[in-house]
Amino acid sequence: MSEPENCPLCQLAPTSLLWSDAYCLVIPAQIPGIGDFCRVVWRAHVREITDLVDADRHRLLNVVMGVEEVLRDLLRPVKMNVASLGNQVPHLHWHVIPRFQDDPFFPDSVWAAERRPPGVRQALSEDVLRTALEKRLSSVTKTPL
Amino acid sequence: MSEPENCPLCQLAPTSLLWSDAYCLVIPAQIPGIGDFCRVVWRAHVREITDLVDADRHRLLNVVMGVEEVLRDLLRPVKMNVASLGNQVPHLHWHVIPRFQDDPFFPDSVWAAERRPPGVRQALSEDVLRTALEKRLSSVTKTPL
Repeated sequence: MSEPENCPLCQLAPTSLLWSDAYCLVIPAQIPGIGDFCRVVWRAHVREITDLVDADRHRLLNVVMGVEEVLRDLLRPVKMNVASLGNQVPHLHWHVIPRFQDDPFFPDSVWAAERRPPGVRQALSEDVLRTALEKRLSSVTKTPL
Repeated sequence: MSEPENCPLCQLAPTSLLWSDAYCLVIPAQIPGIGDFCRVVWRAHVREITDLVDADRHRLLNVVMGVEEVLRDLLRPVKMNVASLGNQVPHLHWHVIPRFQDDPFFPDSVWAAERRPPGVRQALSEDVLRTALEKRLSSVTKTPL
């Protein structure tokens, strides 16, 4: 089990953040043939979402929902995949992954074997993503939970 | 894309339900070597959680959280995995899966290749699971969202 001192999600560089507030971080990630996606990371080293009090669960899930909306809007995927696994890095985080009919794994999960070689997918501008997240998520911490 | 007339999640037999309310269904599922887990299904044929209004997103996520609590309590897994994929059946549903150090896939996702053959895991009594879900989820539809 990872402890805070050797947990990669406890040691994220501030430069890698797309968005953050006092509770959550949004960081960029990529999968070949799928392209850009986001991870939503709870700041504190907590194992499961159900270790959080209700208000904090809702804070985190509101961010996950907002990130899904932003990625849908920017990328027009055929499906969104949302998952919190953490078997390898048991620090609470959510993957928010756009899926495309021609991506290497579709219609399997991105953790399955590739069905086809990764094609080229246009990268999302980090500025565009940051701006969209800021606009969509600015109200999250003020929203009633 | 599945349409309601050929969507398996639009045609669940009432006998297969562990719990239900006007919005959500909880159904049992099994993976060899992991054993019992639950799927939380939105009743209406909706593709993405972000197609729902906020109150409905919260209703669904409150059920997912409650199911995670019940499975943690009954099974004491080393980790919980929660995911909404729907690439094969694009009718909004969430997998709530307990994970064990010695399960066939650990520490990979259950959608990855097996690392070891499935061992025997004791089945959860459906009565015990129903009773625990009823107790935990009875307040969900009355909880402020």
